[in-house]
This record gives sequence, structure tokens and C-alpha cells, in this order.
Amino acid sequence: MSNLLPTIKGPADLKDLTNEEMDDLAGEIREFLLETVAQTGGHLAPNLGVVELTLALHSVFDSPRDEIIWDVGHQSYVHKILTGRLNRFETLRQYNGLSGFPKPEESEHDVFATGHSSTSISAALGLAKARDLLKENNKVVAVIGDGSMTGGMAFEALNHLGHLQTDLTIILNDNEMSISKNVGALSRYLTKLRLNPRLRRLKYNVRDLIQRIPKIGQTTVRYLEKIEDSLTFLVIPGMFFEELGISYLGPIDGHNIADLKLAFKNAYDRRGPVLIHVLTIKGKGYELAEKNPQKFHGTGPFIRGNGQNLKEADTLSYTEVFSSTIVDLAKENHKIIALTAAMTDGTGLKEFAKTYPERFFDVGIAEEHAVTMAAGLVKKGFQPVVAIYSTFLQRAYDQIIHDVCLQNLPVVFMVDRAGLVGPDGPTHHGAFDLSFLRHIPNITLMAPWNEGEFRNMIYTALQIKRPVVVRYPKRNGLILREYSPYELLPVGRGQILIQGINTAVIAVGAMVSPALQAASILQKSGINVTIVNARYIKPLDEELLLNMVQNHNQIIVAEENVTAGGFGSAVLEFLTRQGIKGIDFKMLGLPDEFIAHGSTEALLSQYGLDADGICRAVRNIDMPVVGMRVRF
Amino acid sequence: MSNLLPTIKGPADLKDLTNEEMDDLAGEIREFLLETVAQTGGHLAPNLGVVELTLALHSVFDSPRDEIIWDVGHQSYVHKILTGRLNRFETLRQYNGLSGFPKPEESEHDVFATGHSSTSISAALGLAKARDLLKENNKVVAVIGDGSMTGGMAFEALNHLGHLQTDLTIILNDNEMSISKNVGALSRYLTKLRLNPRLRRLKYNVRDLIQRIPKIGQTTVRYLEKIEDSLTFLVIPGMFFEELGISYLGPIDGHNIADLKLAFKNAYDRRGPVLIHVLTIKGKGYELAEKNPQKFHGTGPFIRGNGQNLKEADTLSYTEVFSSTIVDLAKENHKIIALTAAMTDGTGLKEFAKTYPERFFDVGIAEEHAVTMAAGLVKKGFQPVVAIYSTFLQRAYDQIIHDVCLQNLPVVFMVDRAGLVGPDGPTHHGAFDLSFLRHIPNITLMAPWNEGEFRNMIYTALQIKRPVVVRYPKRNGLILREYSPYELLPVGRGQILIQGINTAVIAVGAMVSPALQAASILQKSGINVTIVNARYIKPLDEELLLNMVQNHNQIIVAEENVTAGGFGSAVLEFLTRQGIKGIDFKMLGLPDEFIAHGSTEALLSQYGLDADGICRAVRNIDMPVVGMRVRF
Repeated sequence: MSNLLPTIKGPADLKDLTNEEMDDLAGEIREFLLETVAQTGGHLAPNLGVVELTLALHSVFDSPRDEIIWDVGHQSYVHKILTGRLNRFETLRQYNGLSGFPKPEESEHDVFATGHSSTSISAALGLAKARDLLKENNKVVAVIGDGSMTGGMAFEALNHLGHLQTDLTIILNDNEMSISKNVGALSRYLTKLRLNPRLRRLKYNVRDLIQRIPKIGQTTVRYLEKIEDSLTFLVIPGMFFEELGISYLGPIDGHNIADLKLAFKNAYDRRGPVLIHVLTIKGKGYELAEKNPQKFHGTGPFIRGNGQNLKEADTLSYTEVFSSTIVDLAKENHKIIALTAAMTDGTGLKEFAKTYPERFFDVGIAEEHAVTMAAGLVKKGFQPVVAIYSTFLQRAYDQIIHDVCLQNLPVVFMVDRAGLVGPDGPTHHGAFDLSFLRHIPNITLMAPWNEGEFRNMIYTALQIKRPVVVRYPKRNGLILREYSPYELLPVGRGQILIQGINTAVIAVGAMVSPALQAASILQKSGINVTIVNARYIKPLDEELLLNMVQNHNQIIVAEENVTAGGFGSAVLEFLTRQGIKGIDFKMLGLPDEFIAHGSTEALLSQYGLDADGICRAVRNIDMPVVGMRVRF
Repeated sequence: MSNLLPTIKGPADLKDLTNEEMDDLAGEIREFLLETVAQTGGHLAPNLGVVELTLALHSVFDSPRDEIIWDVGHQSYVHKILTGRLNRFETLRQYNGLSGFPKPEESEHDVFATGHSSTSISAALGLAKARDLLKENNKVVAVIGDGSMTGGMAFEALNHLGHLQTDLTIILNDNEMSISKNVGALSRYLTKLRLNPRLRRLKYNVRDLIQRIPKIGQTTVRYLEKIEDSLTFLVIPGMFFEELGISYLGPIDGHNIADLKLAFKNAYDRRGPVLIHVLTIKGKGYELAEKNPQKFHGTGPFIRGNGQNLKEADTLSYTEVFSSTIVDLAKENHKIIALTAAMTDGTGLKEFAKTYPERFFDVGIAEEHAVTMAAGLVKKGFQPVVAIYSTFLQRAYDQIIHDVCLQNLPVVFMVDRAGLVGPDGPTHHGAFDLSFLRHIPNITLMAPWNEGEFRNMIYTALQIKRPVVVRYPKRNGLILREYSPYELLPVGRGQILIQGINTAVIAVGAMVSPALQAASILQKSGINVTIVNARYIKPLDEELLLNMVQNHNQIIVAEENVTAGGFGSAVLEFLTRQGIKGIDFKMLGLPDEFIAHGSTEALLSQYGLDADGICRAVRNIDMPVVGMRVRF
């Protein structure tokens, strides 16, 4: 095996490599990725797919002068390796280590931070128009997957780009996958382009044909000229993009360095917007990942030989519990319909999709559409269950207000990955959902503290004929795999788990467990605290809260959400409306800052959201300070 | 003139009319619309444009069995008139009167509530798939403007619809306008379709031509067959939609009843998704509106003869002040770039667009793209100013977090129509912005209490090198048109306007003025209250707040925003962090419900957000109860 990789200190070192050397380098990079990600975990398959694409890109374009934006950004590992971060790569996704996404603080080659889908063309257009205004002449490139192309924002940007006609290169990395298998008409269209490279030869045959026609009238000549114009689009396929004013090049074999370089050079020399359609294989070069790209899209540490995950938990994740529960409930309740935005696996809907294909919709990376389509389904008596990660639900904030809650429609939102998600970091933490949801009229918000309760919440959510949100963490449950029959959880009622004195800790969802641990630690010092499982963030259990206030000197609320506008804030507002004063009140939650990537446990501990932090709060020592403290 | 209109009690009464009678009816409806809207105000031009379209639609489709969804919904007046609401039409947009938008509570013919753009295809797809699952056979129709088609959500739905291939009719109402003149590549594409109806004849000429070719090889024949297939798309234009799997019919003259009925009947009988491209003239039949459709898009009461507005204010609106200020500031500061999402007029950017065309971007109805493009512009040192109404900014919540604040980029957001907007009602009130923005890390939030301060806030926002939001109401200012030089408003500093005793009223933005009025009313009874202009919602003026708390028994906060998670909630959180207890604290703001349409003044009074309400709060009588009050 060659040993080129250590010699690449930056993109400049790629310029003089032959195509053969680049092929060798590609092999080295794949080997390195496999070796490292098997240990650190991370987004493996997307990066194996773009090795040649990234090499060719950096050999033709001149980063950082030419600006490259990676849509979503989980495919930026090769880019990171080639831009001076090889030696730090083993720290990937660890606290203070390299981010799994492009990060401007990390390198001048990371022009724009990404994480969510479909933002790259918009950001690139901003950079491109800024360049035009500054009368500079660098290139701007957006690398975007066919999955991300289904997000509406990408279309908004294409529409604007086609209008502005500025120089901008879009590299459409078409691997026929978003994270799940791609769906949508655009995807089918791209497949059609994939299958018809033969069409490219058509144009010349038509020219030839026209010249062989003996006698034609003037009108027909004019028509034929029109046809020829149209055939430029038709024969070089990509009409969809051409209609929007964007030149289409492709399809290009995404694992052929020579073809890629040729296409990129062609784009480099053109004026106006160009889209290069590159065909790649997700997981390329690692057979297990090629066969099962979904599993290896994002993975924990695994054994390279058999692909098995290193840690096998003995409890189920909340996602898994949702998965089996919704399949189970849908057996009796034929009105249940499940929707996902390109996250069939991630949200646990794979089994549902297999069992009830007619009642399952993967809408593409299109959270906005998913929510409003659900609202439409409700109008005919169905019970849509929309499963979206907390951070991605931010995309549908307006639709939740305007299309669901304003009409008070009983859509059930299953908000997975609420709270901290660990190594994916700031773009993926679910830090805000309680704050952006609880001020919406008509909404009901719940969070479970264990899987048994979680099952009952899903069951209950389907009984309440209003918009309901259940938010739950990216974490495994606590208890064994035995469940009791479903139970209705009275709306707006919390639960006293331990009755103590002096201090009451009111905990939301995943915070209940550390609160209970804290109680048992404190008990050893003779401190008996009350522990409440809030269950409902909205409506509040007002009676319970008043009871707590009357019988305790100190109230502590704990939530895995920013304190600003969250559950604690709701309790404060309620007590204020009641005219209750003089309570010793403490709010534990996430601070007013973006939370870094790292292990969830370490991050929670840092912010005082573990048993130890709760103990300190009860004992009134060493409180984590959220926000500036003014002294006077 | 005929007198058919009073005989139309519902869509059934249209079925037997001849085309000539329908033309007469169209004339009557236009007359009625002009007469009424001149008195009530409302969306005039969009409705004048769809008279024939709506008549033909209701004569071919069978509402409410067939379900019609009006995108945005401001073009639903004719629909309302034809579905039994003629007699109530004079109550349009008034409190307890007819809504200016489709409203299911109002009529079974209003299937789905709308107000924001680009939701109709998603909702229609939900209804259509629900129909399929129920094995019913009614039709579902989405009526959507070419402007709304630029919103990304519409594309998400098209992409999904093309994939699902269910029966659904899209009527593309193409008037070449959203509210401003339309922009974008799609719009240019539609214009191309408009201009080339001649292309329809092309197909036959080509067939003819092929037959006249003397001798061609086998290969060429096969190619030609392919060309012919492609020509079906090319010649019947609409390739863009056809590529997505949606049949295209058109373009159709939107003011020709016979053509419209023919096209609708054709769509009615087809299987799968169909898009009918209808060409209409916004403002049709009222010359002043045809010439100036932007002015008559939404209008107050006006004089029919000359189109002049009835009320001419002697102060400027906040929008007008923004308009002149940003033009003024951009004179010296060449880094300022202004962006709007299809609201050049509404947001006051018309003058800017004219003065600095290079530094102005109307991105289409695409708030998400606007925000992320602004983030891109910042990366090259520009100072983008994004002007979006509060309610529409909800669409870009994720982009504000993920693309702007996470990278701490100095984008300035001018949030117009914050607070209540009056007759447009619940879909348009800016009731939530303080709550959905203030929990975002790195953001700065301001609200001015008069136009002078507003100018200084715009000036200041451009000095703070961080994400800044200035929120201001749909209302006129207070003072005359004379301004002092710009002044920097220290970040996070409020302002004591009146120093009193016992009670301090801390008011946000538009609430300062009624607070001052309250102070002067109370003074007559010998009550001297302190009045604070908060200026900054974030960061809070912590020193000032502590000062207030130390020197008063009662603190009242007033904001034109839901109290949940808003400014008052922020103050409470701060005081709690400080360990301050025992304060008499009251929160005035909007309740936890969707606010109806009606006059802003009446609504504010109803919720205690006027001088009288503040007086009552100070005197501790008759507090408006926000949320349930539990007694014990």
C-alpha cells in the first residue's frame, strides 16, 4: 500500500498528484476512515462515498479562496483529513475534539457551519453575491446530497439562484439515499437521468437527421431551430434544473477521479450557475456498509470484521420502545398513520412501515410538509403520528402553530432526541423544544421518565383529541422489557414519587432518574426530599404545584432544556399569577449558550443535570450559574 | 345589470347557469366586491383576479364533498360569497364578523384554515391520502398562486405528490405577482410558458416532418420515437412539473369561463396529480387595481373613484420610518444589504430597492432561504438586514438558530407587525416572537417605544456585531417627522421615563405609550408610578431591574406578546436566579389562546393592554386572568 496520506498537509499537496496516485490516496483514506470510525463512531457510509469526489474537488478548486459548503456536513470527514486535520482525527466527536460537522472555528477551510439539511445553496448564494459585490472572482461550491435536495429550502435557493444567474457550482452527490432510502418525485427523476446516459448521444444524431431532410418550408425550419435549442436541454438531460436556469452536467461516475476532475474543471470555467450530477455509492469500499448504508450512516464504535456494534445495551432505547408500541397500538387502532421526514430508521418507524405500508409516509427531508400533511389527514378522522427529532422539528415551528394548533387538530408529535444528544453536538442537541412549543396555544406537552410511562404516554396522546407532543431522549431506558397493560395518564397530572420535607424537586422526563438518585444519596445524610415526576409540561399540574409550595420551603425544577422559557419558567409564571411569593425557587436546566459536542454524561454533569448537581442544588452549594449574576 | 347574485345560495345554484349568465354574475360579484371592500378594507386585487376562476371551479367541482383549499386564503372572498356568506359579507374582518381567510368554523366549504403561504398542497395531499385510505372518491383541489409556489414547502409537497401519484388537482393561479412583483427562476419559467402557446402546435409539425424523411436507419427511428415522447412534454409545456410526475394543463385564460370549465372538467376526469396553469390579472375589472395591484393587494377603506385611502395619518408608520432610515444609513454604510421575502412594499423596502438595487434582494416567499443567505453574506463582511413580519419569521425559526445564532453572525432582523395586527387575525398576529426568539443563545432583542428611538435602534443594531432583532408594531408612530442625529443605545440598558414610588411598570415597545398614559391618569388620583421603557428584551438590564425591585413594592411588566416565555417570564427567571423573593409581580400580555380578528384597539383593550388595563393592574383591581386560576 502507498503511504501518501501523511504527506498531504493541505489541498495544495493534491495538485501535482497523478490520477493513479489519487486513486491510491483514495484507498488510504478509506482505510484510515474505517480504522478510525470503527473506534470513535461517526458518519461512516456518507464519507466512504465521497472520497474521490472530495479529492477531485480539492485538486481542482482552491480552498479556502474558493469556498466549499458541505450540506448537512456529515460527509466532511475526507475534507477535514485533506485540510490539515489528519492528526487530530482520532479526537473526532469527543469533547474538545474535532467536530463531526464543518466548523469555522476549526479551520479556514470550513467556510460555513452546517448540520441540518438543505442550507448549503442558500449560504453559498450569500457568499457568491457578496463576492460579486466585492468584485472578487473566487468560486463558491455547494456539495449537496440528493436527499437534502428534497428539503424545500434547497428549492427556494435554486429558484433564487436561477433568477440571479451568478457563478455558483452545485455538486449534487446522488447516492439515492438521504439517510433512509430516498423517496419523492425528484429522486425518481434523478434515477431516470442515471439510467439514460445514452441520451447524450442523441443530439448529434438529430443534427445529422435534419441535414438529411430534402425540402422543408420556412416555418418548419424555424420550428426545427426551436427543437434544437430544446434538445440541448433534452439530450444533455437535467431539464428540471435547466428550466430553473441552472446548467446541468452529468451524470458523472463519482468514483472515477479522471471524470470528476474533468467535470469540475468544466464547471470551474463556466459562467453562471452549474449543477454537476455525481453518482456515488454510499459506503463505497466497505462491503458491509455498501449493503447496509442505513446502519452505517451514523454508527457507534463497531467491529470492522463483522460490523457489529461494540456496546450492546441490555435495555431498550426510547426509540425502540416507540417502535414496538406504535406497531402494537396500530393493530387495534386503524386510524393511526405514521409520518417521518426521511428518518424511517432513526425514529424507529421501520417496523411500522413494514407492517402497515399503507398507513406510513416517508415524505423526504421535509418537516414542514410532514406536519401540514398530518393536519390534512386529521381532517378526515385519522390520527397522524409525526416522529421528528427535536432539533429538526425546529423547521416546522410555524406549521405546528399555523396548521395544527390554530385549528386545534389532534396530531401527535413524537419528539425524539430531546435534550442532549452527545457527539453530534450543537446542531443536533434538542435543547429548545420545551421553550419553542410551550407558548403555543392548544398544545399538550409530555415527557416520560421511563419506558413504561413512555408507552402509556403514547397511548394517552392518542386519546387526547388535541395537538400533543411527547418528548423523549436519545438514551436507553431504565427497566426490563416487561410491560403492563396500557394506562391512561390523566391530562395535566404529575406524580409524587417520593414524599419528603423541606425541599421538593420537580423533574421533567429524563431528569427524574437523577433526581431519584439524588434523593437516595441525600437520604444517607438524613435529608428527605420530595421528588415529583412532572409528566406534563403543559398543562401544568397546578394543584400539585400549589401543594408543593404550601408544604416545602424550597422548590427545585430540573429539565433537560434551556431554562429560558422552559418548564421552570412556566412554573414561575404560574406561581406569579397565583400571587405566590417568598418561595425559595431554583431552576436547573441548560444555560443560555450553544452546547458543545461530547459525551452526554459529561455534558449533563458539567451543567449540574445529574444526581450530583441536584444534590448540590438541594444543599444550596456551588449552584451552576446560568446567565450572569449581578452583585450589588 | 343582471341580478343573479342574490339567487346564489350555494355552489349548487351555479350548475345550471349558462356561460353568459356566469359572465353576468362575474360582473355582479366584481361590483359587490368593490362596493364592500371600499368600505371594509381587505384584500381586493387578489379577489378581483379570481372571480371567473372561482365561478368555474364551483360549477365543475362539488364542494364541500369535493374539498377546495385556498393557499394563503386572501383570495377566498368570491368563494365565501358563493357559499352562503353573501349576507354577512359586510362584517368582513370585523370582530365577530367574517374572517378574511378560510375558516372551518365559518362554513363547511372552508375545509382547511390558511393564512400563511405555500401550505395548500401539503394539506390537500393529507386529505387526498385520507380519502384513498377510506376508499372514497371525492376530489381534492389546491388553489395556489405563482408566488406561493416559490415557498419551499410547496416544492416539498409537489415532490411527495409526484411520488405518491394520487388524484389531486392543483390550480396554479398565475398573476405574475405574489404581493410584490414575482421574482425567481420558476416565475421566469412560467412567463416562458405564457409567451409560447404557439409551441402547442409544434408537435404536429414534427410528426409531419418525420413522415416526410425519405430513408432513415433503424437506430434513428428509435431515437426519433424517443424524441417524440419527449416532445409530448416539450410541446405541451410544463416540463418542470411533468418531470416531477404531475400532468400539466395550460396555460388557460383565467377570465374565460368556457375555457376554465373545460380545463377543470378535464382535470376532474383524470387520474393522478394534475396542475392547471391559469393566467389571471390581479385587480381585474378595476382599472386602478390593475395598474397598481400592490396597493390594492390589501387595503384599508378607500374612495372608489380615485382609489385614495380614507384615513390619512399625520404620523408615519413604523414601516415608513424603517424605510427612510435604512435608505439613509445605507448611504454611508456600503456594507448594508436588505433582504425581503416577497414583501418589498409591505416591509418598506421599495425605496431601498430603487436606491440601491445591487444591495437589495427579494428572494420570493422564502423566509428560510432569506435568513440563511443573509448568514452567507455576513461571512464576507456585509451587514444584511432581513425585514420579515413577525408571523412569517416563524417559518425561519430553525435558520435563525442554526445558521445565524450558532455562528453568532451579525444579521439584523427587522421584525415588522410584531404584536396584534387587527383585521387579518390569528394567522397574522405577531404574538409569539419574543417567546420564540429570546431563548436563542447569542441573540439581542429590542423594541422601540417611538419612532425616534426606533431610528436609533436600527442604527445601534448595525453597530452590535451579533445577531440582533428589532421588533415593532403595525401601527403609526407618536411624534412629528423631525428627528435628531443617530444615537447609540447602550446594549442591555433600559430607560426610566418617570420616577415614581411603590409601583414600577416596565413596558416593552408599544406598551410604553399606554403605560405613560396610565401614569398620567393615576397621577390625578395621587398615585405616582415609575415607568420604565425596557428597550432591550435581551440582554436584560439587570442593574435597572434590581434597582426597581429594591425601590418598589410592586412590579408590573407589560408586553404585546404571549406572557408564556416572553419578557415578563425573562424578568422572573432573572429575579429567581438572583434569589429575590417576596416581590408583588404582575405580568400583562397576551393570553394562552389564539387571538381573533378585529380592531387592534378593541383587542388590546380586551386583554388589558391599554392605559385602562395598566391602571387596573396598578390599582390591583379586576386583573385580566391569563390562564386558569386555581383557588385553595
